[in-house]
Amino acid sequence: MSQPVGTLPTQVTGDLYAEVQTFYARQMRRVDALDIEGFADTFTEDGEVVHAGGHRQRGRAEMIAGMRASLPRYQDIAVRHWFGHLIIETDDADADLLRVSYYTLVTQTDREGKVNFQPTFTVEDELVRRDGRLLTRSRVIHRDTPAAPPAA
Amino acid sequence: MSQPVGTLPTQVTGDLYAEVQTFYARQMRRVDALDIEGFADTFTEDGEVVHAGGHRQRGRAEMIAGMRASLPRYQDIAVRHWFGHLIIETDDADADLLRVSYYTLVTQTDREGKVNFQPTFTVEDELVRRDGRLLTRSRVIHRDTPAAPPAA
Amino acid sequence: MSQPVGTLPTQVTGDLYAEVQTFYARQMRRVDALDIEGFADTFTEDGEVVHAGGHRQRGRAEMIAGMRASLPRYQDIAVRHWFGHLIIETDDADADLLRVSYYTLVTQTDREGKVNFQPTFTVEDELVRRDGRLLTRSRVIHRDTPAAPPAA
Repeated sequence: MSQPVGTLPTQVTGDLYAEVQTFYARQMRRVDALDIEGFADTFTEDGEVVHAGGHRQRGRAEMIAGMRASLPRYQDIAVRHWFGHLIIETDDADADLLRVSYYTLVTQTDREGKVNFQPTFTVEDELVRRDGRLLTRSRVIHRDTPAAPPAA
Repeated sequence: MSQPVGTLPTQVTGDLYAEVQTFYARQMRRVDALDIEGFADTFTEDGEVVHAGGHRQRGRAEMIAGMRASLPRYQDIAVRHWFGHLIIETDDADADLLRVSYYTLVTQTDREGKVNFQPTFTVEDELVRRDGRLLTRSRVIHRDTPAAPPAA
Repeated sequence: MSQPVGTLPTQVTGDLYAEVQTFYARQMRRVDALDIEGFADTFTEDGEVVHAGGHRQRGRAEMIAGMRASLPRYQDIAVRHWFGHLIIETDDADADLLRVSYYTLVTQTDREGKVNFQPTFTVEDELVRRDGRLLTRSRVIHRDTPAAPPAA
């Protein structure tokens, strides 16, 4: 039997919840606008992204180069990242560290208005606070796959 | 004329809003992972679900049996439940009771990454607080149907 | 280089975040129920909407007439508006004014349960507080189009 759902252990305040949601709202505005430099600035200098296929990008420069290389894919589509079901966990030992996980759904709308969907993903982030601001230090992106059925 | 939109009567605090959102984020992680026992544990022992077709499940044991029976449907798809537009209402007479309604969109992604959508639903929950933790006591799921046009 | 993501300048409280989200949850319940009068009541008397095509509606009466005219479109579909990535900004000079932007995805589910999607939009609102309640004073709806690639 799994542990009972607890809102006690990692209960976040409303202020922190709003701050994290707002951080992602701004970060996604940038990636969806293809503002590559602006997006990279929402990561720490040594920020790391592990993509669903396993490819790992480390540091803003590598991130920027990778995004520039994939720009041709986006020339005729408007991309929007939708988030769901954020779970924010604080760290007892490090007040400047947050672990966040969330669902993402990515829409791609073409010039005629037709909406296509990428497969859904679940993302695990580490956010850190630097000079009062949140930045992403680590992001691991998991493509959602069929769950294993529970043992009978 | 309908009552003016009021944020006054049932204004919830940011802390409660974050707590309820986090409760659902954890509950949906479990159902989407086919963690049937873990999902059932987010309900009260006598928790009740009324499905869109009218079928009623009462108690964790019945819920678990029903979910086990429907497992074959999920063997090749990754299911994700997306929520929208939560409305949380407190109860003047019972500080441990919350009434919550929300929209749901359910994605089913197959192994090739193609995303299919179930019809949209609106859900009405009663949550209760037991030993500090939230649990679902009652859930009524409504399939969304075309609205009746207003009288001219 | 764009300005670093700042959670400092316009950090909203959790209470305000929950209030604004709840305001939209109620406003969207009304529009999705085709409760035209109720929806209009969530705007100020002189409230203005600029639609994605450039058409401008000013005042509740004009809004109601416009919505009545478009009712036939909705007679066989259940419409749901989904929001994403709210950014709420307060105004230093006017404590009763909020600027909010968000993404919208609109689902249209037919009687057989098939879900169709409108193109995605980004919306900019001005909300004002009147007698303690939030109302929309201005809404500008932008259809999402492919972003211009950044200069090399």
